Amino acid sequence: MRRIKLTIAYDGTGYCGWQKQDGAVTVAETVENAIRKLTGEDVELLGASRTDSGVHAMGNVAVFDTESPVPADRFVPALNSFLPDDIRIAASEEVPESFHPRFDAHKKRYEYRIFVGNVCPPMRFRYVHHLRETLNVDAMREAASYIVGTHDFTSFCAAGAQVKTKVRTVTDIQVTKDGDEIVLTVEGDGFLYNMIRIIAGTLVNVGLGRTKPSEITGIIEGMDRSLAGPTLPAKGLCLCKIWYS
Amino acid sequence: MRRIKLTIAYDGTGYCGWQKQDGAVTVAETVENAIRKLTGEDVELLGASRTDSGVHAMGNVAVFDTESPVPADRFVPALNSFLPDDIRIAASEEVPESFHPRFDAHKKRYEYRIFVGNVCPPMRFRYVHHLRETLNVDAMREAASYIVGTHDFTSFCAAGAQVKTKVRTVTDIQVTKDGDEIVLTVEGDGFLYNMIRIIAGTLVNVGLGRTKPSEITGIIEGMDRSLAGPTLPAKGLCLCKIWYS
Repeated sequence: MRRIKLTIAYDGTGYCGWQKQDGAVTVAETVENAIRKLTGEDVELLGASRTDSGVHAMGNVAVFDTESPVPADRFVPALNSFLPDDIRIAASEEVPESFHPRFDAHKKRYEYRIFVGNVCPPMRFRYVHHLRETLNVDAMREAASYIVGTHDFTSFCAAGAQVKTKVRTVTDIQVTKDGDEIVLTVEGDGFLYNMIRIIAGTLVNVGLGRTKPSEITGIIEGMDRSLAGPTLPAKGLCLCKIWYS
Repeated sequence: MRRIKLTIAYDGTGYCGWQKQDGAVTVAETVENAIRKLTGEDVELLGASRTDSGVHAMGNVAVFDTESPVPADRFVPALNSFLPDDIRIAASEEVPESFHPRFDAHKKRYEYRIFVGNVCPPMRFRYVHHLRETLNVDAMREAASYIVGTHDFTSFCAAGAQVKTKVRTVTDIQVTKDGDEIVLTVEGDGFLYNMIRIIAGTLVNVGLGRTKPSEITGIIEGMDRSLAGPTLPAKGLCLCKIWYS
């Protein structure tokens, strides 16, 4: 038995998220079906991140155990030949059977993309949140600097989430311009449910002048979801990369 | 009665091309339906370019005549509110009733995008032709220089096309790299049926070493479709811009 690690990219538009669920087409199920077609085995994919419906990925990670003789690196072309064009295996390798894609991850990078302008290009609408108002990028950068660090992120977590602790470390947030888009690049050791989308909504409130950068510390310390900004739509979010030791 | 000129951008993936036809969802019909919802009028859109099924546009142009009191520039937000996200009105203005979007166009720019690499990103597959082999960009540039000019482009026209003359002027072809993509930017006074996709197929043959740049002149002079390269897939093609005097 070998454990195979897959790096998976997908356009989340057509999927009800990563995680298998009855009556919905999900990324995990679609990849499991491709593995079945290739190896004849019914495997269970163990994913690093259960991205929500509509969220994209360039580098989600998942493992499965197999008896198949397919060489580890050949799972890339072989599985891609069974997958739809909106899901791609970007890399495959054998890992120790003890490797766990979620528990062994020590850093993740997400991007949240905001298109600013009157008319969102039709080739971009699946991948951005569309705003018509100009954003103050300098103010957003200052606000982001207060979010970076180790904090209890209760204010930035969807109400009702059940986790042992809401303390997380955000190691970096970059606010950059990419043509007509503003890109929030967020890195950290782990993220609470909807945390990036709430950080994005809070930084947009700052960019619009509704929240001052200096108010961020109070929002964090208040430990109350209602203090932070709105949860921005899933389609602007992309899981870019996961780091392992 | 006023004549309104629309600049239209679309992701052609979900449409059977521009031109209205029975039993198929087309871009023209979708925009006409939006105009009907806004003005109550049954209009006929007259388009500059009848893009094929799957071809994209950033700047196709069309006109319609209306009695509606909507200010000319307000057709942008008003029509966009009735259109799906994969079709966007980018600009609207009133033009003289004599303005003809096809006959008055004096230059058009198209882009053909080729992704070169093993795995095509899932956010890009709708907009590129995917090749795994490396292309010799310098050879493609040299070949392109022989295509630029006024020629009978019979060799670069889909067989069976009915036009008075196949003489056209290609004013510029740029072959550029954009990350993992090679972009062919082609400008000219007008193009024959499939002409850009056949130019792209011929330049790819050059990039792969199957055709020498110096053979291009003979391909043009032979006036025989079978001499040129294949017609590359529609999805790599985008109509970028149309110029009017």
